[in-house]
Amino acid sequence: MNPNYAWLIVLGVTLLSMAYIFWNYFRIKKMPEGTPEMVELSGIIRSGSETFLKTEFKSIINVVLVVAVIFTLFIEKTCGITFLMGAMMSSIVCVLGMKSATYANVRTSNKARESLSIGETVKVALCGGSISGLAVQAFGMFGFVLVLLIWQGVSHDSSSTGVVGLFTDSYALTCNPSIMRISTYSLGCSIVAMFNRVAGGNYTKAADISSDILGKIRHDLPEDDSRIPNTIADFIGDNVNDIAGNCSDLLESFVATMSASVMIGITVYQDQIAHDSAHAELYENVFNASTLFPIILACCGLIGCLVGLGLANVKKMSDNPSKELDLSTWISAGFTIILGGIASYLVFGGVLFKDITLYDSFKIGWASPWVSSIMGIVSGVLIGVITEYYTSTDHRPTRELAEICPEGEAFVVTKGDAIGSRSCLAPILIIGVALIISGFVCGFYGIAISALGMLAFVGATVSIDAFGPIADNAGGLAEACHLPHEVRQITDKLDAVGNTTAAIGKGFAIGSAAFATVSLILAYVENYTEPGEELTLNFASFLVVAGGIIGGALVEYFCALLTDNTIDSAKLMADEGDKQMTDEVLAGKAKPDYNKMIAMAAKEAIRKMVLPSVLALLIPLVGGFLFGVEFVGGLLVGATIVAIPRAIFMGNSGGAFDNAKKYIESEQLEGYGKGTAAHKASVTGDTVGDTRKDVVGVALDIFIKLMSTVANTLAPIIKTISLMK
Amino acid sequence: MNPNYAWLIVLGVTLLSMAYIFWNYFRIKKMPEGTPEMVELSGIIRSGSETFLKTEFKSIINVVLVVAVIFTLFIEKTCGITFLMGAMMSSIVCVLGMKSATYANVRTSNKARESLSIGETVKVALCGGSISGLAVQAFGMFGFVLVLLIWQGVSHDSSSTGVVGLFTDSYALTCNPSIMRISTYSLGCSIVAMFNRVAGGNYTKAADISSDILGKIRHDLPEDDSRIPNTIADFIGDNVNDIAGNCSDLLESFVATMSASVMIGITVYQDQIAHDSAHAELYENVFNASTLFPIILACCGLIGCLVGLGLANVKKMSDNPSKELDLSTWISAGFTIILGGIASYLVFGGVLFKDITLYDSFKIGWASPWVSSIMGIVSGVLIGVITEYYTSTDHRPTRELAEICPEGEAFVVTKGDAIGSRSCLAPILIIGVALIISGFVCGFYGIAISALGMLAFVGATVSIDAFGPIADNAGGLAEACHLPHEVRQITDKLDAVGNTTAAIGKGFAIGSAAFATVSLILAYVENYTEPGEELTLNFASFLVVAGGIIGGALVEYFCALLTDNTIDSAKLMADEGDKQMTDEVLAGKAKPDYNKMIAMAAKEAIRKMVLPSVLALLIPLVGGFLFGVEFVGGLLVGATIVAIPRAIFMGNSGGAFDNAKKYIESEQLEGYGKGTAAHKASVTGDTVGDTRKDVVGVALDIFIKLMSTVANTLAPIIKTISLMK
Repeated sequence: MNPNYAWLIVLGVTLLSMAYIFWNYFRIKKMPEGTPEMVELSGIIRSGSETFLKTEFKSIINVVLVVAVIFTLFIEKTCGITFLMGAMMSSIVCVLGMKSATYANVRTSNKARESLSIGETVKVALCGGSISGLAVQAFGMFGFVLVLLIWQGVSHDSSSTGVVGLFTDSYALTCNPSIMRISTYSLGCSIVAMFNRVAGGNYTKAADISSDILGKIRHDLPEDDSRIPNTIADFIGDNVNDIAGNCSDLLESFVATMSASVMIGITVYQDQIAHDSAHAELYENVFNASTLFPIILACCGLIGCLVGLGLANVKKMSDNPSKELDLSTWISAGFTIILGGIASYLVFGGVLFKDITLYDSFKIGWASPWVSSIMGIVSGVLIGVITEYYTSTDHRPTRELAEICPEGEAFVVTKGDAIGSRSCLAPILIIGVALIISGFVCGFYGIAISALGMLAFVGATVSIDAFGPIADNAGGLAEACHLPHEVRQITDKLDAVGNTTAAIGKGFAIGSAAFATVSLILAYVENYTEPGEELTLNFASFLVVAGGIIGGALVEYFCALLTDNTIDSAKLMADEGDKQMTDEVLAGKAKPDYNKMIAMAAKEAIRKMVLPSVLALLIPLVGGFLFGVEFVGGLLVGATIVAIPRAIFMGNSGGAFDNAKKYIESEQLEGYGKGTAAHKASVTGDTVGDTRKDVVGVALDIFIKLMSTVANTLAPIIKTISLMK
Repeated sequence: MNPNYAWLIVLGVTLLSMAYIFWNYFRIKKMPEGTPEMVELSGIIRSGSETFLKTEFKSIINVVLVVAVIFTLFIEKTCGITFLMGAMMSSIVCVLGMKSATYANVRTSNKARESLSIGETVKVALCGGSISGLAVQAFGMFGFVLVLLIWQGVSHDSSSTGVVGLFTDSYALTCNPSIMRISTYSLGCSIVAMFNRVAGGNYTKAADISSDILGKIRHDLPEDDSRIPNTIADFIGDNVNDIAGNCSDLLESFVATMSASVMIGITVYQDQIAHDSAHAELYENVFNASTLFPIILACCGLIGCLVGLGLANVKKMSDNPSKELDLSTWISAGFTIILGGIASYLVFGGVLFKDITLYDSFKIGWASPWVSSIMGIVSGVLIGVITEYYTSTDHRPTRELAEICPEGEAFVVTKGDAIGSRSCLAPILIIGVALIISGFVCGFYGIAISALGMLAFVGATVSIDAFGPIADNAGGLAEACHLPHEVRQITDKLDAVGNTTAAIGKGFAIGSAAFATVSLILAYVENYTEPGEELTLNFASFLVVAGGIIGGALVEYFCALLTDNTIDSAKLMADEGDKQMTDEVLAGKAKPDYNKMIAMAAKEAIRKMVLPSVLALLIPLVGGFLFGVEFVGGLLVGATIVAIPRAIFMGNSGGAFDNAKKYIESEQLEGYGKGTAAHKASVTGDTVGDTRKDVVGVALDIFIKLMSTVANTLAPIIKTISLMK
């Protein structure tokens, strides 16, 4: 397969997808918004969300520009541009996703109001979600292909320096510009995602928790009462974190995995050729194939998503939203598998000759990458199923949690901790087995492809995931705007389905992050190893072991930072809200100053996002400077091994707390309901879980991916400047 | 230094210590017990504790015997005996420690009653504690020296098989009997410790938490009210877990570290000689030195402890217990450092010649092992200081936790989580730096010696640690037996000091476990590597990475098992207690059936200790069978990297919760005190922390050490039977 043609095909598919995205975007925008009350409230939410993103981007831009200049000067002269491209793609996707969600939420409620049909309503919400989902995949690929097209693909033997190197011969730092461009493009996506997740989590949960303090502890008011000034900020938070944050998170995973696959493709070639230079020409073909396949596989996935989501757009929907959403996912995944097989044959079928030693590590020939990708897809689906088991009220764990609520707060928290810890084993065993199988079938390259397989139909998973907050907001709007009971029945049904898809989405995000990080670490080891030398990250070394345990501790420290920040912001906002809740406001005679609270939430969130994000950037640099590349390898491994179960713990214990509360509120626990002591205990659990699942858990996966991407980018620097080189 | 003489000297010192231990034991026993009420209540506690240990040992003995037979048949013919020796030493120390504590507690209250002097009272409690402490060190060393003396030391080139190998030539499994004897002796200690910690934690916390449910949630009774039938079991639990459990825990750490040092000494020799066989004779001397030094260093520490604790026994004590306890520790540590230096010079001074390549890895000659041991000692002390910072009400974290209590339960738990996570970084950085320095100065051997340095004066640290529960029980007895106010003032002061020492003791246990496990893992890698080959545990391998993340998940699963077991037992005991709390009992006209509750606590604890303990035994075997020795190496590394911060988190968040509650109870938080909503929230935090610090945290370190010791013992088997050899 000629790479140049292939890239043009990929570019064509992404442009087609973009056209489809914008067509949907304007189609949604044109739909009627409903009653004047709905128009007003949704307008406040939309403008609040936009203001937040604007303020956030203003803060981020400085950091991004400084980093871009440093990269251009000291690493590789084109890398500042690729880094900016990554940051830009991520930002576009955030804005697009958030805008479409804030259009779609009110139109979803209105569709329910007008049609009173579940199927029709699901269509609007899913269409809104699919804009985010497809944008993640299309824009991520678009930027990637642009990087390849502008600088004419990847090369295994070129070398380059930063701008500084052009002016002085004594400047020692050279690197492979292909690797650097890809890795800085990915880093651009990562850095925006990190800021987004940290700030978004802080924003939404500080608003949420401070509302709780004011309503439940300081005054005795119902949830979401409009006399509490913090409630609107809470609404906005859903869009800021669950849509914009989630989009940039998965865009980052997706791009990082494509990059890792290509980087591993390059270095596998360099290793092989060093041992087997007699077959240089054959290897050249393999090199082209293995650096091409990742983007082709992603393109197959994008086609799958277009088919799956497009069908949902045109077909008549049944009244069972779960079934319809599952169908879209299955169609997308199925197409990805089928097209992936064809692509694997076309790309590798003609180049893998028995003469070359590499042939031995492709255990089943051209089908090896394909089988690896299927491993990723299957484990992604299985992790979703397990997440549902641990967090849905249909199954034992969450029911047991609800049943223990009458014994009081301490029991609820302890039981929730146990559920969270217990839920780590199965997903991690699946990841472990998938790693072993794909590694066995296709080596390190197989592991990277397996990670990419999991993310190859990310467009569909993010769409289904974004369905959740849109439905959630639609339900909230229906309630706040006093729409009729039948309408709320429909939105409640969508909301319930949305909760499950959100939990599954979190599981998926963590699973894919685990795969992505492992392949990033392997790429990093390949980056610092000289071609031809055996890849080694030896834990039978005191430096690496020390790195490992310190990496684990840094993850805990990161968790502590985010948790403390959320509590602090929540307390500040509660105190400010308290001041606003004068007797007049409490009597309903005056409105509190919503805008002041919204501005405050944004200010706190943005102020507090800097330290955790910069930490992730600096740790590999400082660690590497002090103790060298292998120490950083230890750090990354340690951080990953601790972060994966921690993230699963946070997500699943949080999900179980949330649903146990809902179980009691819906009177399914005999003898207990809203207002009982058991309900109060379940609310405590839910609040504890809020910070876990929406602030800490979702940021952990970016933390490890960002550190690994930074390490990949800085590997040549660390090697040069380290005190222990 | 001639090893045979050296061993005899060590034997002499241990026998002398034992004489001193028993002298103190009978001296304590002869002291008066006080009022008839005190005699009765302390009698119930003593007999309850004894009954529990008896029942527990009856259950353990079967597992121990089966394992001993398997070892004798299949691993090495003498290993069943050494394994039993380890189990026996651990059991003796448990019984001795628990008996002396249950004698000392009531005599401490009585001494306070009779003398009204803090100094005199501290002396009795510390003397009681020193019996446990010195027994841990003396019996641990005694068994170790016996193993050396009976089988004439260690050898680097002998080989042996199990009994099965004597009868059939086709039996392939051979091993180095010296390594196997040492490692099975250590395993014997570990297995008893594991059962002890798991069962003890379950016993004490199920009793504690069920009392809380009955008193605070189901009935409205004050804490420790005698109408709640579960309170006496709670008293007993303190002795079972905090004394017996802690003794076997630290005995296990101590013995495991000595074993790891000797094993590393053997394999370092084998590696060196393979590369440098020209200097065989010189190396023989180094071999003798490096396998001798660990036991000599431990002996130096024992002498230091005898001096430090002996002085406390004879001198006149001031009224400042903290100062007196610190003084004992400092004297013991100081003597260990000084004597360790002399020992290092005597053992290594004459054998480290510049001719041999090993000389290069002893960066500062004979002083290298000494400096490594100092690294361990210093980091042990520093970790203690940090633990105090995070858990004492004198410092900011716990005060902030108390200050957030008025905002409600969810805030308390979330803030406590943040404190726990934050407190991991500093201790782990210290461990990391100590590992790097000792590894740099003296290689792998240095790391093992550093771990041993931390534990070389374990006699003193366990004594101070055991002071805590004795003082706690003494205070409880003074209260329950209505002793005068002045007496309770004295016991309260001791109790407060005891809380801090207990927290420091936990930090120390975890720190030493981290060191011990790292050296056990290194010993394991050396065990499976052929002599002369480079030691490798390569994380740039899909099998090892998969092992790493699965190992981490197993730690979370283990936490979940222990937590769930505790909740289940607590619920069962609460329901049984509820049944007993008839109107007559509540009116004070009848006594509840304490013995039934005690028996129930014991039964539940013992029934539930099996699965978690067996898990630790089976994981390395099953993992190794399926995926080989390197996969198990990955498992161990992953488990360690996750378990260290988890254990610190559990201990410190639990300690902070506990003390924040006490802070509020002592009315130090203005405007809040017992009975306020803030106090109720702090009680929730304390109950959440109970399971964390006394069940999960303390068992985690044994879990990783036990797995590592099992892996060391089974390394030859795994190599032979694995599907992936």
